[in-house]
Amino acid sequence: MQNKPLVITTGEPAGIGMDIVIDVLAKHRSAISTDLIILADAQAFFERFECLKSLDKTLVLPEIFVLKLSKQAFTELSCSDLFANKSEWDNFVEKLNNSLQEKSANNSKLMLVDVACAEKVVAGQLNTANAKMVANQLYLAHRLASAGVVAGIVTAPLQKSVLIDGGVTLADGAMFSGHTEYFMQAAGCDKVVMMLANAKMRVALVTTHLPLKDVAAAITPEAVRQTVQITHDALVQQFAIKNPKILVCGLNPHAGEGGHLGDEELTVINPVLQTLINDGMDISLAMPADTLFTDKYLQSADAVISMYHDQGLPVLKSHGFGDTVNITLGLPYVRTSVDHGTALDLAGIGRASSSSLLQAISVALQMNGQADT
Amino acid sequence: MQNKPLVITTGEPAGIGMDIVIDVLAKHRSAISTDLIILADAQAFFERFECLKSLDKTLVLPEIFVLKLSKQAFTELSCSDLFANKSEWDNFVEKLNNSLQEKSANNSKLMLVDVACAEKVVAGQLNTANAKMVANQLYLAHRLASAGVVAGIVTAPLQKSVLIDGGVTLADGAMFSGHTEYFMQAAGCDKVVMMLANAKMRVALVTTHLPLKDVAAAITPEAVRQTVQITHDALVQQFAIKNPKILVCGLNPHAGEGGHLGDEELTVINPVLQTLINDGMDISLAMPADTLFTDKYLQSADAVISMYHDQGLPVLKSHGFGDTVNITLGLPYVRTSVDHGTALDLAGIGRASSSSLLQAISVALQMNGQADT
Repeated sequence: MQNKPLVITTGEPAGIGMDIVIDVLAKHRSAISTDLIILADAQAFFERFECLKSLDKTLVLPEIFVLKLSKQAFTELSCSDLFANKSEWDNFVEKLNNSLQEKSANNSKLMLVDVACAEKVVAGQLNTANAKMVANQLYLAHRLASAGVVAGIVTAPLQKSVLIDGGVTLADGAMFSGHTEYFMQAAGCDKVVMMLANAKMRVALVTTHLPLKDVAAAITPEAVRQTVQITHDALVQQFAIKNPKILVCGLNPHAGEGGHLGDEELTVINPVLQTLINDGMDISLAMPADTLFTDKYLQSADAVISMYHDQGLPVLKSHGFGDTVNITLGLPYVRTSVDHGTALDLAGIGRASSSSLLQAISVALQMNGQADT
Repeated sequence: MQNKPLVITTGEPAGIGMDIVIDVLAKHRSAISTDLIILADAQAFFERFECLKSLDKTLVLPEIFVLKLSKQAFTELSCSDLFANKSEWDNFVEKLNNSLQEKSANNSKLMLVDVACAEKVVAGQLNTANAKMVANQLYLAHRLASAGVVAGIVTAPLQKSVLIDGGVTLADGAMFSGHTEYFMQAAGCDKVVMMLANAKMRVALVTTHLPLKDVAAAITPEAVRQTVQITHDALVQQFAIKNPKILVCGLNPHAGEGGHLGDEELTVINPVLQTLINDGMDISLAMPADTLFTDKYLQSADAVISMYHDQGLPVLKSHGFGDTVNITLGLPYVRTSVDHGTALDLAGIGRASSSSLLQAISVALQMNGQADT
């Protein structure tokens, strides 16, 4: 099953999601070895292509096979009503698989699954009427990955406020808060880990989008342990690194300097790390973040674990902003994402860079070998 | 007064302070245009030189003029008894100035003021009996800078624990906590700003060595205002940048994302910044740290202000660890420092890198033009 396709969501239709997917297909298709399933509103997608082509006459799309979904599904707001019953789903998967197999032996195939918008898409203009279509992309991507139809999910950006205002909620009824939380709940995971990666380093976070004042209290033994364990397992299973070396930041400046600048290293972080070291993991105890991120240490590290957002991401993004990929570890499938927003002002004008999407696809392919374990 | 000397402390005698000063003098003297006054125990200094020369026969020191201080001063533990009275001080300064003037017109001069140790120095072995000698270096450096005899102070590392265990206290009786606090109290300043700089960027901090859990509460309007104002004034007066552009990080991830991830940007930081912008400063409102530190923004910035240690310093040090310089802004004189510790295990074995010291001297010279305003 090495040649399983990847599914790519185009995300918010008013943003640059479709633009960057079109750019990758037009310019980098030959560099991607696997079949791709694009989730988009077909009409909006080809309109966006014509718009971009009018700005760059050299733009040519490779052959794309369009598979339609029934429109009926879009009358309700639940995320799980794209298929009325199991046979509708089975029918869809069969059509998809048949379509993927209708190809010459040497070419990978492009499919576009037509996830229809409720209202016409205007580049740059958010429309909550189309919130459901974005949620449907996530649902479909999750379901295809869970069923093992695809090897992994690559996501273009969505606009959280549209889904919130459009009444889309998470499976447990909570407010929609992002791709990561959506897939975590959909897959029934307790905990996933957000990792960002580029050519220079991989950084996984113990806490993510928390106010700074709440960070220290969130650094619990269990949060540290789970983050290290999930990161370690993903490096082994998905990145095929046999005995990964992981460096861990302290919470406080100078990693607390022996307790003088905060004691969480002594009371919380190091006891957990020491247990994992005793179990055979090749990880550091808590290190000062301002020495850890230097070449001397980074060169030997397969990943760094930061305790919070602004301890790890500014340094990562300062070394290659455009090429950064967001990876969700701990899901039962591979999921990578671009690391930028919808950039509404750049939609449809031919100025959106697709480098992060290309990188996200490349990392998903790299993780692909183990994607269906 | 463009040719005023710099004073360089050698710091902890058991550490690499003397090693890196010797390295700079032996290898880079010709690149330094000004007179230098080195503070060291003369015997220990020349012994360390012989030790290093035995490992590298090519090492040659330029001519150094030694000025002795009375030993009597070292019987008490106060930091201010190097000179019994004003006439002793005047006498010292006169001898120093005379000595500096005895030179050929084209050469700058090297002076070593012999600040004697109480006990013999052994490389790598801390000795609290010599704590007072380290404190005397700081006192002397401060007094020479305050009197305008020198244009600025460059410091090699000291070992805080030696000064604390040796009974050295700050002017107000508080525990000795570092160079920065020492000079701040000695100069009678309410607030100084720690800035780190290398070829890539300058980063000033609102809070420095605080446990992470205490950071949010320390981000007060006054702390933000003073940090921006002192940084701005130093860029204008000491770095001769007419209308400096300063970018300011938020406290929270994504700078709080409109209040969803913390509200200090809205309630504390931005109101202060807006007032300063209204007063004509070219500064940003609170920006997400993980976009601020990318080339797109850094290229236009004369300095960045981070709210706390690990938000700014990991990214700075990841771009050129060895060349980073620590600068204290807000003092009535220039003070720069190496950005590394005493590295006891490297003392006397010829393996200490002097690149940070050379950079600290270079930055002090750059700031020199306005040093005595």
